[in-house]
Amino acid sequence: MKLLLLGFGTVGQGFVQILRDKAHDLQARYDFAPRIVGVATRSRGILYCANGLDPAALLEAIKAGSLEHYPESAGLARDWSVERLISESGAEVLVDALPTDLVTGGASLPYAFAAIDAGMHLVFASKGAVAVGYDDLMRRSRAAGTRVLFEGSVMAGTPSLRLGMQALAGCTITAARGILNGTTNYILTAMEAGRSYADVLAEAQKLGYAEADPTADVDGWDAAGKAIIVSAALFGKPLALDQMDVHGISGLTAADIDAARASGERWKLIAHVTPEGGSVMPVRLPLSHPLANVSGTTNAITLTTDLLGDVTLIGAGAGGVQTGFAVLSDLIDLQRIIFKSAK
Amino acid sequence: MKLLLLGFGTVGQGFVQILRDKAHDLQARYDFAPRIVGVATRSRGILYCANGLDPAALLEAIKAGSLEHYPESAGLARDWSVERLISESGAEVLVDALPTDLVTGGASLPYAFAAIDAGMHLVFASKGAVAVGYDDLMRRSRAAGTRVLFEGSVMAGTPSLRLGMQALAGCTITAARGILNGTTNYILTAMEAGRSYADVLAEAQKLGYAEADPTADVDGWDAAGKAIIVSAALFGKPLALDQMDVHGISGLTAADIDAARASGERWKLIAHVTPEGGSVMPVRLPLSHPLANVSGTTNAITLTTDLLGDVTLIGAGAGGVQTGFAVLSDLIDLQRIIFKSAK
Repeated sequence: MKLLLLGFGTVGQGFVQILRDKAHDLQARYDFAPRIVGVATRSRGILYCANGLDPAALLEAIKAGSLEHYPESAGLARDWSVERLISESGAEVLVDALPTDLVTGGASLPYAFAAIDAGMHLVFASKGAVAVGYDDLMRRSRAAGTRVLFEGSVMAGTPSLRLGMQALAGCTITAARGILNGTTNYILTAMEAGRSYADVLAEAQKLGYAEADPTADVDGWDAAGKAIIVSAALFGKPLALDQMDVHGISGLTAADIDAARASGERWKLIAHVTPEGGSVMPVRLPLSHPLANVSGTTNAITLTTDLLGDVTLIGAGAGGVQTGFAVLSDLIDLQRIIFKSAK
Repeated sequence: MKLLLLGFGTVGQGFVQILRDKAHDLQARYDFAPRIVGVATRSRGILYCANGLDPAALLEAIKAGSLEHYPESAGLARDWSVERLISESGAEVLVDALPTDLVTGGASLPYAFAAIDAGMHLVFASKGAVAVGYDDLMRRSRAAGTRVLFEGSVMAGTPSLRLGMQALAGCTITAARGILNGTTNYILTAMEAGRSYADVLAEAQKLGYAEADPTADVDGWDAAGKAIIVSAALFGKPLALDQMDVHGISGLTAADIDAARASGERWKLIAHVTPEGGSVMPVRLPLSHPLANVSGTTNAITLTTDLLGDVTLIGAGAGGVQTGFAVLSDLIDLQRIIFKSAK
């Protein structure tokens, strides 16, 4: 399987690190031996090599600051554009690990459409382009006979979408509730330990859990973007961001936290979707609720089903390797599909 | 897909109920339209019909006490033996919903081997035959080119095995810890509320959560049987029951429960397997542990992975429809495989 990797930040590097460290295992257990034929970054260089780029050398080059440090080798090109990589590299899958943009979808969508036109499958590691462009991506890929996968857009590599779409096939899912944003859950957990919102936010920013502009997290927009994707994956129709009722945690006070505790409850920022609509808002949950005990940056989702009742999945919600695994799991799935149809 | 159903108790009926209620949905969403060509019970009759038996009529007959009440129809036979059903019915899949027997595997294993010899795939709804006969079942089915699936043997239809074997493909799983027995978890939850072991056990027996002879549950053997299957599914090698360290909850006193509570902890009966071995024993978990907050008859499993850290799945652990869904999900999976190779 020939891959084109767009974006080589934390997640792109996490993915390439897995390929470097587990090549033998992936080949032996899944007959999976991908070849990265192109890598493109916005300001740190572009590489193309039909024979495949070496994962370890890619990681060393980017750690030294730029793909320019990748060693010279036969067939290596450094002057291709992204457009040319898409149309001429012969890659079968475009892995999008570009920065996410929940308003416009960012640079990802034009590249994605070009890749579909070139007959490529798509794997998205983050939510922006999928949340904004879901309908167009699905319509165009269906027409082209290619697939669009995006496990990494919700709860990193924790298989939240695969649980609903594959493992629970046969059930009808009527609702999903989740803690889909690690930053706000970290803040709420620390506030329960008696600290102030401002204090914990400053610490989260220092630790890299929260952005300098924390609006997307604390006002609920990150969770809302993920809720849109969950609704698209489970119910086949993405909500529009402006159709959702979105509230963040910045208004929660120490008194609110105390009042919940006094009633044996706990505040959580809960994303909730049904086939009819969705919301993101702080909710007081009894301590016995499975989502009430998910603490720190951990994420969780509860799917309500007709045959099994509630099924809850708890796991990592962020991280380079954790999201890199989401890309890997989508590729292993694609290989089953490609392999199948090639037989 | 033509099915042969052995056993028509709670789980068999749960499965047939799903087929009765969701036939249209299963056909539309998964192109799945199974036909039950034979049903065999030990003392309530046997039916065979090449054209397929009607799910609603099967349920009405068994509710009236016996398959003898199934209406006469063209091609219906009531005098076949199980052996003849296996060799002559032309069914592609044997669904085993017989009572479980953790010591010998019960009647299931001889039927299973005959079915493999007849080229059938196998779906097991419970643990006995799989835990006892795993190696033989796998060796013989591999040689015959058929599949053996058993999602229902652990945590009913909650996809605990499918999570580890499919959704987390690409990760290496290094350990699994779970609350795999609902009866003991129900008893422990009630003891925390201040009630005595003997009192709660009597109530659980009255409610049908515990057997008249509760040994298999309270002494840990039911959980151990499931742990054996988890180890087989995740690590490819089943533990032997006598290789495991198995302790139950019958020795736990109110004082033990209180002592844990005073330390901010909670007793849970935890099944634990790694590639090196396994155990079932009461463990004191801190309240912040995801398994500590799984209460009542709910089950849960935590898989420890190399790339994602811990992933926890919480859901139903028993029930006719819940385990019937496990059978359905195995059949939908089999259909993908059969359909694939037929293409």
